[in-house]
Amino acid sequence: MAENKKIPYKIYLDENEIPTRWYNMRADMKNKPFPLINPGTGKPVTAEDLTPVFCAELVEQELDNDTPYFDIPQEIQEYYKTFRPSPLIRAYNLEKALGTPAHIYCKFEGNNTSGSHKLNSASAQAYYAKKQGLKGVTTETGAGQWGTALSMACAYFGLECKVFMVKVSYEQKPFRREVMRTYGASVTPSPSMETNVGRKINAEFPGTTGSLGCAISEAVEVAVSTEGYRYVLGSVLNQVLLHQSVIGLEAKTACEKYGIEPDIIIGCAGGGSNLGGLISPFMGEKLRGEKDYRIIAVEPASCPSFTRGVYAYDFCDTGMITPMAKMYTLGSGFIPSANHAGGLRFHGMSPVLSQLYHDGYMEAVAVEQTAVFEAAEMFARTEGILPAPESSHAIRAAIDEALKCKETGEEKNILFGLTGTGYFDLVAYQQYNDGTMTDTIPTDEELQKSIAALPKFE
Amino acid sequence: MAENKKIPYKIYLDENEIPTRWYNMRADMKNKPFPLINPGTGKPVTAEDLTPVFCAELVEQELDNDTPYFDIPQEIQEYYKTFRPSPLIRAYNLEKALGTPAHIYCKFEGNNTSGSHKLNSASAQAYYAKKQGLKGVTTETGAGQWGTALSMACAYFGLECKVFMVKVSYEQKPFRREVMRTYGASVTPSPSMETNVGRKINAEFPGTTGSLGCAISEAVEVAVSTEGYRYVLGSVLNQVLLHQSVIGLEAKTACEKYGIEPDIIIGCAGGGSNLGGLISPFMGEKLRGEKDYRIIAVEPASCPSFTRGVYAYDFCDTGMITPMAKMYTLGSGFIPSANHAGGLRFHGMSPVLSQLYHDGYMEAVAVEQTAVFEAAEMFARTEGILPAPESSHAIRAAIDEALKCKETGEEKNILFGLTGTGYFDLVAYQQYNDGTMTDTIPTDEELQKSIAALPKFE
Repeated sequence: MAENKKIPYKIYLDENEIPTRWYNMRADMKNKPFPLINPGTGKPVTAEDLTPVFCAELVEQELDNDTPYFDIPQEIQEYYKTFRPSPLIRAYNLEKALGTPAHIYCKFEGNNTSGSHKLNSASAQAYYAKKQGLKGVTTETGAGQWGTALSMACAYFGLECKVFMVKVSYEQKPFRREVMRTYGASVTPSPSMETNVGRKINAEFPGTTGSLGCAISEAVEVAVSTEGYRYVLGSVLNQVLLHQSVIGLEAKTACEKYGIEPDIIIGCAGGGSNLGGLISPFMGEKLRGEKDYRIIAVEPASCPSFTRGVYAYDFCDTGMITPMAKMYTLGSGFIPSANHAGGLRFHGMSPVLSQLYHDGYMEAVAVEQTAVFEAAEMFARTEGILPAPESSHAIRAAIDEALKCKETGEEKNILFGLTGTGYFDLVAYQQYNDGTMTDTIPTDEELQKSIAALPKFE
Repeated sequence: MAENKKIPYKIYLDENEIPTRWYNMRADMKNKPFPLINPGTGKPVTAEDLTPVFCAELVEQELDNDTPYFDIPQEIQEYYKTFRPSPLIRAYNLEKALGTPAHIYCKFEGNNTSGSHKLNSASAQAYYAKKQGLKGVTTETGAGQWGTALSMACAYFGLECKVFMVKVSYEQKPFRREVMRTYGASVTPSPSMETNVGRKINAEFPGTTGSLGCAISEAVEVAVSTEGYRYVLGSVLNQVLLHQSVIGLEAKTACEKYGIEPDIIIGCAGGGSNLGGLISPFMGEKLRGEKDYRIIAVEPASCPSFTRGVYAYDFCDTGMITPMAKMYTLGSGFIPSANHAGGLRFHGMSPVLSQLYHDGYMEAVAVEQTAVFEAAEMFARTEGILPAPESSHAIRAAIDEALKCKETGEEKNILFGLTGTGYFDLVAYQQYNDGTMTDTIPTDEELQKSIAALPKFE
């Protein structure tokens, strides 16, 4: 135990230790993720298919399964310095409260106004859009963290920003909208009446509270139909996992600096951006057979793509206008219940993570909302930080693993991704505090129905 | 300019560089602050007068004008490590946007869930209460930052916590209440009908939106009438400035590590906790004649204690149940307009800072709300952090000084206190974004009236 005392509560790297290259896990995967499919041609999407939607350099990153490292442009490195390095926290107080011999570490990405790790990829995507001479970008946001991050990055790089915000989050988090507006963005609740796909969804599902899938459809429609605009996405895509590798690279450097080696690495999984980023350098070692780590994806029981979905080609959006991705999916027609972890309400999953899960490189668990908030409250009271509901899924799993260590007496090192703060999630905390929070789990029948409606493509 | 590049965007000290002693400015003041007066006896308050209200060790700190340093107890040092050191930020992007040759630094105290520097003193006060074997504490909160900080510290040290929240903030910031509840505190809007003084104020001023002064009265009443309870206060008191000296001590260490010497030090001033903490070691040097610094207090034009108040004995609360303090005051009967910077809506000012201002050791300026939010927006867009309205008063003054440097070409070092984040101030930002924010400045007549009602005591 004396040795532990040398590890500070928060490990901050120096500014010059921030990674200068992103790591591309795909380069080390024997089984590459399946390509995106153009639903019009039934063939793998080409750069030509994607450039009307995405910035040119991002398209290159999206399609490159071979280059292991990408240099981070100097301008992005400079911007990273305004909010990175992020601390690696040793959760001493949580360990003590649990009475566990495990050592719990979390990589805390919430110390910026976007409140999450999303700024890592927003920076990159805004930079490349500006470099390409674009006027603005469109996007969707669930919990509002991605939209806020993009608004911030667009303010910094000088771009217009139009955000479609999942209606349930828009209503639960009116203040998110004002943060985005303060940074100069426009924000529209989705499904809206501003787009063809929004009008169609509203007609088909009156009163729907929306989903990330709907909002993606709307944002893409506006991007491709507006001069000088492109679409950007905060998760799922290969490029996003590439940018988010900065989380894992920094975490790994911090661990190495203090001689720590994680036994278990845990992250919440919605579209996969945080989990994919956190695990990337560790997974790289695992893929190359150099090291072994237990890697656990944690998803909400209300939207369990890994644990109850199928590995199949599906659309990334509800409107079925995006390319199809081979991924773990509940079907693009699945609209999850209004779980408060808005950032995890996505029917699919990153194709990279899907392939890794399929190949047995990682595990997945689904946890229920009330158990998640119980973990969140415990973490807040012991460690001081009010966690985002999304992040609290990882906290739940980390606590569960730490309690197993208590039973077995094992002194494991558990590393989890504390992706963000819950300062805009107080409607959810209020429900939890009032004892009115419930758990909603889709029935087998519901899932069978949405999965049966998957596009017929192998 | 090459030399500047060596200064990182954010200077984080090591954990072992966090101060282990608080500095007591009073020890170096030739003219000591005037003593608190017991309104019953008309004599300076004694330890016996104060111990029914405050914890014993805090009473000692309150009354000690001579001891220059107080050791920070080990338990508080440990807790500090969960949220300190706080970064000293070089605002490179703001400088660039202003085109100023000035170097702007800010000590950022908002990187914790309370969202402000308030946790520095909350930690200390909760610790001493627990050490004394108390059951709980009561307090008031304006913007909600102090109440949140105290809730967090009480959760950590295992104490009950009852918070009276200024009604206007309670209504503008419903989510603050939920943060406090998540940490286990109870929260009551003030003036309430739970106390004698609350009922009296409600009867006298129907529909009042409250003030810090009212809320203090209520919290004190409950503390002295509840077994095992004491009252704690987040500002104004000498003990609070002592605890907050950790801000200035850390800032000074960070400056010294990089060879920086501030020319101008700027802080917002409500009750004086942040300003008093930030300036303390610098002011110590100034008081001892070792160094000179320009020190500027920034207050809202809607509640201008320094710039339009009088230096006189007054009650610290509206209910006139607290001791009287000699301070710059607008009269305890003054109820400021609903300026969004709830933490600055206090009629008085720290007696220590009042004496220093009276003796010419510092300047004061009053700024209007819309100009403050203009500065806040500029800071957010350039530096990424959404600042609290309170902190934005200091940003306004820092920008004004940096613009003067632009005119004169002077390369001054400007250090300001970025006390907190604005994540719970989005109603105010919305008004600013919508263009509906107004400035409310008290008329001379109003101030004359409240000042004329000061207690007759010299």
